[in-house]
Amino acid sequence: MSASGPLLIPKGFRFSAVRAGIKASGKPDLALILADTGASAAALFTKNLVVAAPVQVGREVLRAGHGRVRAVVVNSGNANCATGAEGIRACKSVCAETARLFGVRAAEVFPSSTGIIGVPLPTGKITAKLPELMAGAGASPGHLRSFAEAILTTDTQPKVASVPLRSGEASIIGIAKGAGMIHPQLATMLVYLLTDIKASAAELRPLLRKVCQETFNAISIDGDTSTNDTVLLLASGQSGVSLKTMPRDFERALLQVCRSLAEQIVADGEGVQHVIRLRIEQARTRKDALQVARAVAHSLLVKTAWAGADPNWGRILAAVGRSEIDVKPAKITVLIGDQVVCRSGMACSFDEARAHAELSRAEARVVVRLGIGKASLDFLTADLTQEYVRINADYST
Amino acid sequence: MSASGPLLIPKGFRFSAVRAGIKASGKPDLALILADTGASAAALFTKNLVVAAPVQVGREVLRAGHGRVRAVVVNSGNANCATGAEGIRACKSVCAETARLFGVRAAEVFPSSTGIIGVPLPTGKITAKLPELMAGAGASPGHLRSFAEAILTTDTQPKVASVPLRSGEASIIGIAKGAGMIHPQLATMLVYLLTDIKASAAELRPLLRKVCQETFNAISIDGDTSTNDTVLLLASGQSGVSLKTMPRDFERALLQVCRSLAEQIVADGEGVQHVIRLRIEQARTRKDALQVARAVAHSLLVKTAWAGADPNWGRILAAVGRSEIDVKPAKITVLIGDQVVCRSGMACSFDEARAHAELSRAEARVVVRLGIGKASLDFLTADLTQEYVRINADYST
Repeated sequence: MSASGPLLIPKGFRFSAVRAGIKASGKPDLALILADTGASAAALFTKNLVVAAPVQVGREVLRAGHGRVRAVVVNSGNANCATGAEGIRACKSVCAETARLFGVRAAEVFPSSTGIIGVPLPTGKITAKLPELMAGAGASPGHLRSFAEAILTTDTQPKVASVPLRSGEASIIGIAKGAGMIHPQLATMLVYLLTDIKASAAELRPLLRKVCQETFNAISIDGDTSTNDTVLLLASGQSGVSLKTMPRDFERALLQVCRSLAEQIVADGEGVQHVIRLRIEQARTRKDALQVARAVAHSLLVKTAWAGADPNWGRILAAVGRSEIDVKPAKITVLIGDQVVCRSGMACSFDEARAHAELSRAEARVVVRLGIGKASLDFLTADLTQEYVRINADYST
Repeated sequence: MSASGPLLIPKGFRFSAVRAGIKASGKPDLALILADTGASAAALFTKNLVVAAPVQVGREVLRAGHGRVRAVVVNSGNANCATGAEGIRACKSVCAETARLFGVRAAEVFPSSTGIIGVPLPTGKITAKLPELMAGAGASPGHLRSFAEAILTTDTQPKVASVPLRSGEASIIGIAKGAGMIHPQLATMLVYLLTDIKASAAELRPLLRKVCQETFNAISIDGDTSTNDTVLLLASGQSGVSLKTMPRDFERALLQVCRSLAEQIVADGEGVQHVIRLRIEQARTRKDALQVARAVAHSLLVKTAWAGADPNWGRILAAVGRSEIDVKPAKITVLIGDQVVCRSGMACSFDEARAHAELSRAEARVVVRLGIGKASLDFLTADLTQEYVRINADYST
């Protein structure tokens, strides 16, 4: 079972993408997934209280359609966020027109948007292109790739992962874009997970929540939460294989796809030079471990030290100390790679060149052992480089 | 009443500084305040659970000495943090030797350290220089300046502010260094507030807490909390003026000194190009306002936008939305300078060149009105520049 290799496209889905002129660059910016016979759906959205129109409409769609989805329409180049009641109307009109052309109900069309905040969605440009978008849909790897590319904003790479189920009788594929909020006025992580196993929305929901907790909720590039973040899981049932016959295998496969996408997202983060596999061990609870991981992963001083491949364990220790978890400093051990660099909360002799070399790798490992419990957690994060600042401070009047 | 102007040195204090060879640069790194007849003391320390030895010893000193202090001994170049029981012993031996030379009890000597984490304190170098340090103490502005310079690490400027009390009968002076944790392995904000009014430690404590809440607790450069942060207030009583006769005036003067030092600290923050006066208005409570201010001031996307003088209100809105305060997005107004750039949580037309010009100033104003209450808060923060990353990622093996 591997998340790389040839793309396995689950039965029951078609893909399409066109240029609608939303992006100033003229690149493809309107994309579609069709579930010809419908799909059970489960979704998770941003926890930001400032939410974009498509997130509000998407929530309504899942409620009104009882978790059945027939189409997903995505635009990049415009987040349709901070656009008020007009933004909701614009989003619904795109869903309605998609539904009309595909011959389904508007409540079966799930919308997503990503891009600039605070600019009205150009619905005219979008609806004018919907017939072409619909006509071009297909189930080939090429169609899937064109979808994966059209949803990108500042990403440098499309992000796709697939895993076979029951020796290829069924499969899961995931398509993602973005990494936190990483570009001026551009936003959003969007993740589409598609499978052809048979499952109800009610069966999918807890699985999606659990797997996201381990993957997309355990990554951080800049600590910012987008107003549009969406993870959507669709199950077409077209393989004939039922989730009930293989719940563990399915969960494992879903985890594998999501983990691969999460890793691709962090590695493609703006200005990222080093991906850091941060592991928190010996915490009282997993929740505590997550809070410590976030304090470390969000510390500017830790992130800049990583940018310089600087084995500065003092900054890591200080970040743990201000995590608001009741840690015992004298019990903390820090490892860079396999090497202990801080023991009992104190300096210990270590090979600094070796620690520097570990942190110089494209992917480095840092472990913090709290010494106060048995819970552990893997967290994926990245360094903070001058390039990140350059990109995000870039403003020309 | 002004915090600039000539330095007003309160009666009852002498200052000194020498080179002890702790800093690699060879600059002055050992400094002393003597309170010849003793002083009432109140102090606030870092909330970080990882605390340096001098913070632990300083707490003990205030407890054991019932808030009476006779001397403050400070070294820069070494934080004496993550140094374990040996670090505590080292700190105590410096205090004991200072006490012996000055003819006071060790429990009357308050220690501070700032600098590298995880390196043993070179007590030999320090105690060898104590006699010279003691002998050189004086009460002139020159002596005060030498103290203010010797406690610096990566600061580019000494930070001093003084205010007269009762037409110059008494005064308050403040000396500060640092700004959060701003340099590789270097740490710490240290603030010494000295006055010659007569007050007990018990009277000083609540005043110090209140004033710090408005000043040092309402600034942020990089969101990191040092392991050594200390604010110490000493009252010698040598003016003969009693706090009881002018509690309001004293509080106002203390606030003014602390505000000036807080502003000097932010303006001198590593790589800072723009100081931002962030004001949160119409929050339910002051505590809510502080949480919103911190979410905005710690957002990498907001800070990098400020670096580019980019009037990107969408990022501010998104940061408010993830502050975990129950805001109403549709009620949020954002101003840059005097200009509304976001109304009712939505885009509104504004003069972008004017907003860009405001953010291009050395000190710019940003206001967020939440529209859900009556509490407000002023918060001082800064942009995040490539220079900050360059300095903090700088590592040469």
